[in-house]
Amino acid sequence: MKYHGYFFILIGLGVLSCKQETVKEKEVSAEKLTSYVNTFTGTDGPGNTYPGAVAPFGMVQLSPDNGLPGWDRIAGYFYPDSTIAGFSHTHLSGTGAGDMYDLLVMPLNSRFNESLTPEGAYRPYSKFSHDREEAGPGYYAVDLLSSGIKAELTTTSRVGFHQYTFPKDDKSQIILDLGYSLNWDKPMDTKITIEDNQTISGYRKSKGWANDQRVYFVMQFSKPFDSGQLFKDSKEIQGQSVSGQFTKIVANYKTGDGEKIKVKVALSSASIDGARKNLEAELPHWDFEKTVKEIDGVWEKFLSKITIEGTEAQKELFYTNLYHVFLTPSLHSDIDGAYKGADGKNHIAEGYNKYDTFSLWDTFRATHPLYTLLAPKETEDMIKSFLSHYDETGLLPVWSLAGNETNMMIGYHAVPVIVDAYFKGIPMDAEKALEACVASANEDGRQIDLYKRLGYVPTGEHHENWSVSKTLEYAYNDWCIAQLAKDLGKDEIAVTFTERADNWKNLYDPESSFFRPKDEKGKFISPFSPKEYTKEFCESNAWQYFWFVPHDIDGLEQAVGKEEFAVKLDSMFTYYPEANDKLPIFSTGMIGQYAHGNEPSHHVAFLYNNIGKPWKTQEMVRKIIETQYSTKPDGYCGNEDCGQMSAWLVLSSMGIYPINPAKGVYSITSPFVEAATINLEGGKQFVISTENQSKENCYIQSITLNGKPYDKLTITHEDIVQGGELHFVLGNKPNKEL
Amino acid sequence: MKYHGYFFILIGLGVLSCKQETVKEKEVSAEKLTSYVNTFTGTDGPGNTYPGAVAPFGMVQLSPDNGLPGWDRIAGYFYPDSTIAGFSHTHLSGTGAGDMYDLLVMPLNSRFNESLTPEGAYRPYSKFSHDREEAGPGYYAVDLLSSGIKAELTTTSRVGFHQYTFPKDDKSQIILDLGYSLNWDKPMDTKITIEDNQTISGYRKSKGWANDQRVYFVMQFSKPFDSGQLFKDSKEIQGQSVSGQFTKIVANYKTGDGEKIKVKVALSSASIDGARKNLEAELPHWDFEKTVKEIDGVWEKFLSKITIEGTEAQKELFYTNLYHVFLTPSLHSDIDGAYKGADGKNHIAEGYNKYDTFSLWDTFRATHPLYTLLAPKETEDMIKSFLSHYDETGLLPVWSLAGNETNMMIGYHAVPVIVDAYFKGIPMDAEKALEACVASANEDGRQIDLYKRLGYVPTGEHHENWSVSKTLEYAYNDWCIAQLAKDLGKDEIAVTFTERADNWKNLYDPESSFFRPKDEKGKFISPFSPKEYTKEFCESNAWQYFWFVPHDIDGLEQAVGKEEFAVKLDSMFTYYPEANDKLPIFSTGMIGQYAHGNEPSHHVAFLYNNIGKPWKTQEMVRKIIETQYSTKPDGYCGNEDCGQMSAWLVLSSMGIYPINPAKGVYSITSPFVEAATINLEGGKQFVISTENQSKENCYIQSITLNGKPYDKLTITHEDIVQGGELHFVLGNKPNKEL
Repeated sequence: MKYHGYFFILIGLGVLSCKQETVKEKEVSAEKLTSYVNTFTGTDGPGNTYPGAVAPFGMVQLSPDNGLPGWDRIAGYFYPDSTIAGFSHTHLSGTGAGDMYDLLVMPLNSRFNESLTPEGAYRPYSKFSHDREEAGPGYYAVDLLSSGIKAELTTTSRVGFHQYTFPKDDKSQIILDLGYSLNWDKPMDTKITIEDNQTISGYRKSKGWANDQRVYFVMQFSKPFDSGQLFKDSKEIQGQSVSGQFTKIVANYKTGDGEKIKVKVALSSASIDGARKNLEAELPHWDFEKTVKEIDGVWEKFLSKITIEGTEAQKELFYTNLYHVFLTPSLHSDIDGAYKGADGKNHIAEGYNKYDTFSLWDTFRATHPLYTLLAPKETEDMIKSFLSHYDETGLLPVWSLAGNETNMMIGYHAVPVIVDAYFKGIPMDAEKALEACVASANEDGRQIDLYKRLGYVPTGEHHENWSVSKTLEYAYNDWCIAQLAKDLGKDEIAVTFTERADNWKNLYDPESSFFRPKDEKGKFISPFSPKEYTKEFCESNAWQYFWFVPHDIDGLEQAVGKEEFAVKLDSMFTYYPEANDKLPIFSTGMIGQYAHGNEPSHHVAFLYNNIGKPWKTQEMVRKIIETQYSTKPDGYCGNEDCGQMSAWLVLSSMGIYPINPAKGVYSITSPFVEAATINLEGGKQFVISTENQSKENCYIQSITLNGKPYDKLTITHEDIVQGGELHFVLGNKPNKEL
Repeated sequence: MKYHGYFFILIGLGVLSCKQETVKEKEVSAEKLTSYVNTFTGTDGPGNTYPGAVAPFGMVQLSPDNGLPGWDRIAGYFYPDSTIAGFSHTHLSGTGAGDMYDLLVMPLNSRFNESLTPEGAYRPYSKFSHDREEAGPGYYAVDLLSSGIKAELTTTSRVGFHQYTFPKDDKSQIILDLGYSLNWDKPMDTKITIEDNQTISGYRKSKGWANDQRVYFVMQFSKPFDSGQLFKDSKEIQGQSVSGQFTKIVANYKTGDGEKIKVKVALSSASIDGARKNLEAELPHWDFEKTVKEIDGVWEKFLSKITIEGTEAQKELFYTNLYHVFLTPSLHSDIDGAYKGADGKNHIAEGYNKYDTFSLWDTFRATHPLYTLLAPKETEDMIKSFLSHYDETGLLPVWSLAGNETNMMIGYHAVPVIVDAYFKGIPMDAEKALEACVASANEDGRQIDLYKRLGYVPTGEHHENWSVSKTLEYAYNDWCIAQLAKDLGKDEIAVTFTERADNWKNLYDPESSFFRPKDEKGKFISPFSPKEYTKEFCESNAWQYFWFVPHDIDGLEQAVGKEEFAVKLDSMFTYYPEANDKLPIFSTGMIGQYAHGNEPSHHVAFLYNNIGKPWKTQEMVRKIIETQYSTKPDGYCGNEDCGQMSAWLVLSSMGIYPINPAKGVYSITSPFVEAATINLEGGKQFVISTENQSKENCYIQSITLNGKPYDKLTITHEDIVQGGELHFVLGNKPNKEL
């Protein structure tokens, strides 16, 4: 393996060559980065991640299902559980909404609860143990203790690949259950056709959080089954095909001891034919081990986009998070570009990969900015995907899932993603992008009509929730539109949206010094308690939303007053909820009123940089990393949220974070790792290095950029993508002169 | 607490006064025996016990349900699981059949998966942790981590008592779900009526393993509910009553922080009115703590039937097993004697308690003989219960459950229970008992017609399973009938059944020296491999069934030859299955071919006493105790089986076990505990004491009975119930002269 880097570790000696001269093209036998990833991180606690096999941004998320409903089990798998109901092909990573779980496959045999199957009609749950479970990027294996069958999973982007090792048994089975569902997910129309005794195909159309989900599939078995029994509503039916709400096929085998039977399941959102083409293109062979190696290689390539130096623990934390950054969005188009659009029709993504599953309220903050550094080509395709969504629906996506708009959460945060990418030079049809942004900002739904009329979203009994949060987020999105319009010379639009960008001021209440809900008549509502979680704040309170003016921190500081702003920022991290305060499910990872477990807080620790107290940013970011993250199964303090929680860690660990994620500027803090090299597209590298890095030495003493003293607390995207080295000298005391 | 005993422990000093003179009526502050019981033992592994609240032989088994199906979860709760779906009122202890689970109660609130209940129609599973769970006889408590509600359960014999401690919440709920079912259980007809805002009543009629199960109930709430929402098939319906297959009520509350709401649920198999009377009679108050204390006192009384000396670990093992001995059979009649009979009609048990849930194939071996020592009154009522079953159906129960005959397993093993009790002087209508025994032995079903005609049950494609096992067990049961008939002067019956008792000889194959399946024409089938698990042997093979001639061990020895018998007995414990041998789910706890995890083996280790090698019995019984039992959750090596696995331990630990459980004779081995006092009804005591007891000193050197040398390896029931002391001197080498 080639390893290009300014810095490297001599394996075995552990010598850290931090300050040596640049060594290019030097080959060293580096450790595998995939070995640092713990795919179980986030599967306990509120993380809601899954441990299964997935390619970076892959269409298939083939992962074990405990078979239990509930908040804890949104990703299908919850570390404390002891059951496996099977392996389904689609899962959400780190969300708060229980959907997907398509195409559950489960192997069985006569040892499986045999005395409990007089009618064979119940759902089988196998016992499993973490002692006999193993996983890494693109691979998952578990012993099903109730049957003695070993299950292994791997995947390509569009094809899930199962390998089951059976004990000797005359009644071995592989079941595909299209009726299986959990939480919000509900099968509506499913079909299975036996094409021959090694091939079946069909579809599962379901409804849940997303209204119209379609998963077409072709499934191949490495060994012809002796018989294929079709079921509808748990009753066996005759023939070669079955359709209905709850369908299932049982493929029967006699197996020898240790016999392996493999199964490939290709997906498509567009058609069975599309699934078949995906299968032929991506996985024409039956070599399971080869596929495991290949997907591991793909992951190694993605993880190598950043190479770091640091302790083993730091590497595990960093790469586990970097891994989660690349799980979502999900590839949505077939090998020939076909996909099911948000208008319910099939489309062709011409010359790009259509992505979907955009959790934009979360990911516009740090995930998409990180993609502009690490995955510019995918970013280009994601923006094309936004624009095709616009073509299909007339609006940019808000929370789009599997070819649907779920309208979950608030804002039109595709806008900052587009604008950020635009200014960073990601190719796009900018005119059309602006048109889509303006259209999304001017629709009448989502209380935007009221927002436009009043300059804020009002609260009141007959109004929707989250009025303050919407006002602040709309205002920020509007600022983004104004920048894009300005740059494209669309002055009229720029003026309109520059005005709208100031709408945050309309809800600022000088009396309480918070953003405070207002009614339709312009009156602030009373009583008002900033720490209460009321319906005007999205999953949050007035403390957490106070900071959400990312485009005008200076203006916010002025509104509050310089001193008050500083006091408030200190209070944010020290004013803890009391024992009897009722916190919502999302308010986790609390440091004072700061809730790292949810997104509105994510930029707040960096704001000390804006008020001349950067050492407090350095302290606090270090504290958040050290107290709110680990690689244990409960290593996330809140929902991982499709990469946002992880992207925060990845960027902050390198010492950079975008307060305004559409401005191309990163706020600086002391790196947590010893060094990081961002391997940019085109071969350039940006190195972040440190001297005197340690747990105590979290304070920046001095910075140089490419060897020259650097006295700013921000660095531009441009500086980074040119390549170079940002070097930190650290110490155990604040340098207040910096 | 008064402690009557020849021997006692001086707490705090730990001085063991083994050989001192008899001290009567001496008061010592003894430890509580209930504190030695681990109610979680058997909830992991194959034990299939439940950890919930139950009275000795109680009608209610109020225990947590994980809410998952499967063999491991037959008792509703499986230690490795992490979920609680609620608390249902009926459970089976240690069986292999998944039934019961009536009346699931679950508290909820708005913190419970709130974002996953858009339609409120899914089953809620709370997370729980063993760190925040506590239980003992008659009490179970757990923190429901998904809601923050603490759940506590206790019970009287017929009334389950719940106490829920809620956090502050405006949407607290207590749900009763009559549609909940698992495994074989299926609701057929259920009904809920709201009588007032503190009282509901109704029934749940279900079908499963037992065909016609009826649970009538009255449920009271300590606090009036704000509203009671009725559901049918997950849809809310209006009115004060709902009936159908799947019904549910949600009682809504606003709760203050730490507010306790209690629920009492009285059961009856006969009627709602019966349940109401049970409630009034057994639990008229709302004092939860008092009820916990009372049920603890009841358990203390039951456990005090034997007081032992030994290590703390021995006490835990002994009392945990003694506890399990008293869980089943279950009280089936109301306070006024009414119960649902096996004929589907209601009956009145006049002057006795009607019991049901008789797992007789298991429990005739050691559990019922133990009851004759510890629970003679209950034994009397159990036999009355057999005879009422006979009145209702014309046959004695085989595996009766909740007023049904399930016809599970084989034999007519109510017979040895009756005959054993008869000869031990338990009062009964002996003439009628004999009539019932003969009727059961002469019915045409269960292949008894063939058995009578051919002298054995034949095998063959068109015949039912388990032909060899049936032949052997019928022959033994027939011997029992012959003894009873003889004693009652019914010579004709005695002659007939004495002849039938020899039927085991008809399947003995001198060539293989095993019991070997025969076809209808009298030809032994070929091929025949004794270690194979074939359909002719009930959950077993020819090795395990070879020893099942408990009434004629001498005859069996003669048939095989003295030397061959001894070799075979050694081989039984040394001839291990090979890696590729396929064992059925029941063959667990293997020592050679000996399977302690299933019942047919249970008397085998004692057979060395019959062939002059008692030290091998002493070795092997000690080995079984030490390797096949613990108080860990997976402390049983097989299904606990309604007390049989535990009764084996209790008797063997005291050094006595009935090879022929209808003969009133116990085979002797070295005690495992240091001393045991059986506190007999009427105040007499039988003491088993040891000298030089230790792990190594498992060999009997000498025995005295009431101070006189004792040279027999058996002791009669009569000797025991007269009171006295059986004293063992132990050593680390066999005394082969004994």
